[in-house]
Amino acid sequence: MTDIAVTLADKRGTLPPEDKLGFGKIFTDHMFVMDYATGKGWHNARIVPYGQIEISPAAMVLHYGQAIFEGMKAFRTADNRIVVYRPLDHLNRFNHSADILSIPQMDVNVLHDGLKQLIEIDKEWVPKSLGTSLYIRPFVISTDPFVGVKVADQYTVFIILSPVGAYYASGFKPVAIKVEEHFVRAVKGGLGEAKTPANYAASLKAAEVAKKEGYTQVLWLDALEQKYIEEVGTMNIFFKIDNEIITPALNGSILNGITRRSVLAVAKDWGMKVSERRISIEEVYEAHEQGRLQEVFGSGTAAVISPVGELSWKGRKITINNNEIGETSQKLFDYITDIQQGRVADKFGWTGEMAKL
Amino acid sequence: MTDIAVTLADKRGTLPPEDKLGFGKIFTDHMFVMDYATGKGWHNARIVPYGQIEISPAAMVLHYGQAIFEGMKAFRTADNRIVVYRPLDHLNRFNHSADILSIPQMDVNVLHDGLKQLIEIDKEWVPKSLGTSLYIRPFVISTDPFVGVKVADQYTVFIILSPVGAYYASGFKPVAIKVEEHFVRAVKGGLGEAKTPANYAASLKAAEVAKKEGYTQVLWLDALEQKYIEEVGTMNIFFKIDNEIITPALNGSILNGITRRSVLAVAKDWGMKVSERRISIEEVYEAHEQGRLQEVFGSGTAAVISPVGELSWKGRKITINNNEIGETSQKLFDYITDIQQGRVADKFGWTGEMAKL
Ligand SMILES: Cc1ncc(COP(=O)(O)O)c(C=O)c1O
Ligand SMILES: Cc1ncc(COP(=O)(O)O)c(C=O)c1O
Repeated sequence: MTDIAVTLADKRGTLPPEDKLGFGKIFTDHMFVMDYATGKGWHNARIVPYGQIEISPAAMVLHYGQAIFEGMKAFRTADNRIVVYRPLDHLNRFNHSADILSIPQMDVNVLHDGLKQLIEIDKEWVPKSLGTSLYIRPFVISTDPFVGVKVADQYTVFIILSPVGAYYASGFKPVAIKVEEHFVRAVKGGLGEAKTPANYAASLKAAEVAKKEGYTQVLWLDALEQKYIEEVGTMNIFFKIDNEIITPALNGSILNGITRRSVLAVAKDWGMKVSERRISIEEVYEAHEQGRLQEVFGSGTAAVISPVGELSWKGRKITINNNEIGETSQKLFDYITDIQQGRVADKFGWTGEMAKL
Repeated sequence: MTDIAVTLADKRGTLPPEDKLGFGKIFTDHMFVMDYATGKGWHNARIVPYGQIEISPAAMVLHYGQAIFEGMKAFRTADNRIVVYRPLDHLNRFNHSADILSIPQMDVNVLHDGLKQLIEIDKEWVPKSLGTSLYIRPFVISTDPFVGVKVADQYTVFIILSPVGAYYASGFKPVAIKVEEHFVRAVKGGLGEAKTPANYAASLKAAEVAKKEGYTQVLWLDALEQKYIEEVGTMNIFFKIDNEIITPALNGSILNGITRRSVLAVAKDWGMKVSERRISIEEVYEAHEQGRLQEVFGSGTAAVISPVGELSWKGRKITINNNEIGETSQKLFDYITDIQQGRVADKFGWTGEMAKL
């Protein structure tokens, strides 16, 4: 176990009613923190009371965006264990993002130990109702007080925790998505594969416009030809065509989603035909016209599976599966959430136990 | 005049020896701050002592990068006036960046008044040696403590000031620049035209690699074909071919540089042939082969003019103008810095007086 100094909060907060949690607004009593300085490496791993942080107005992250983050979830199982879904996969991706952003690599074991101790301390904050969870947000910021573009010499990594309500509070149902034809999120040679603020900053305008038009998110096309499908705002995307599950191949400009990996593994395990390949929006529309497009769904930590009931591309709207949840979408959602909340055996070894209540 | 509450620092710092200033490491005694909240608009404009700021670890800027900045300079003239170079052009560009990042527009007059009062208060910090200046960094960050991707509801704008040494402390001389062929900074439909952290985050890896290879910066090519010239890390780029001054046209993916505008205006005023158009790296190399490439130089607030003595593209190195400062580069540098520091008449009306000593 890593040596982590713990300073407990004087007063503990309490978990609000579980149907009032929402997403990302409430935080637990503590956070994990660790610093980096060139020459010294990562040091001073600690758990401290959650609260405001002090930074310089010249802190590099505020000016040059050298930063990364992750997003994963802890669940409370029926037998009162706290498990995190694929923690090492998320922490390894965190380090992959670090590499892309020229941020020094972290010891995944230290992060994992820190997370485990943090969850042990704040375990009363993990909600238990169906669909609720504890959202885990590790992130690194560059903190040198320096106004000039360069790779920073000082960083801090944090892990903060937020109890979140059921994503489908008003029922599991299909969403309408706009295929973006003007804005671009990421390009080959850019930062698309990293979980870094830059990619989300680049998505705001398009999402704002789409929301005004009544869509929940945008589906990004490739930056070069605006032809091939990339991913959704905060989800990877899947198409079921002729009973085959198709998702865009990892190409350097989309996120290597952990839920995407789970979907691929489960579908394969079920004996379904699965392929990761380049797929154009034309191909999807053509399949729809020919009655071969059976389902469309997104995959991501927040929603797990999000069925898509409508796509709109250049003003051409198509309704998928009668705007109903597809059979595979439903099965995947049920099975993955059953694994996460311990209702079925975890045959893939995806959940990591962090605490017992 | 805008109503700006002023809280003075208890103790004033002092300007270090002007040959020890460097860039971006030292800050003055005060800063301008103003907040925004949805429903309330921009409010509470104030000048406060420069110092650490408190933000939530969940502050949106740290996670989703919704932020913008500007960079301009104040100079001390021989007759002891403090002037800022093209302040309104910079503040209007600040608002243009805000628009691209879905950040609410600011009243340019309020910012200008805030800057003026701030400089009046900290005017002793403006260095006077040749080439020195007071670097001005306005920036906006999104501050909602919310872990989810959306346009924020709370922002703070700051203006901080940093006295900076002569950019060419060891003499005005040409630099070597690497033409980037792998990484991409920005793409049409993306954020390239905004001064926002995302673009600089996207430049770190390429700059790091180039530095290791002995180059000071990279020259970006277009994201689509890696063929057409965009700009340098923190400068726009100019080529003098057959006595014509050529710079890439504004295309949505490069910054609309204020120094670029100055160069174009001055060169035109001198009766030179000037054009803003698409220019490929092949064209530059071809012109060099034919002996028609006379000069290459960058333009930006930090360096004003930076002559380029060497380009390297796909391992092919070319030396420009014998690695000496070109005639036009030198003339532009001299004339623009003379205007900035009040040594010649400001016939374009570019300098704005902010204080008198
Ligand atoms: C851009 C983007 N793509 C895809 C995903 C889905 O990834 P994961 O399944 O790892 O949550 C996310 C969310 O994390 C995301 O932000
Ligand atoms: C990407 C980029 N291009 C160009 C420039 C030059 O712009 P300006 O002349 O306004 O400083 C800068 C610096 O501000 C920059 O960061």
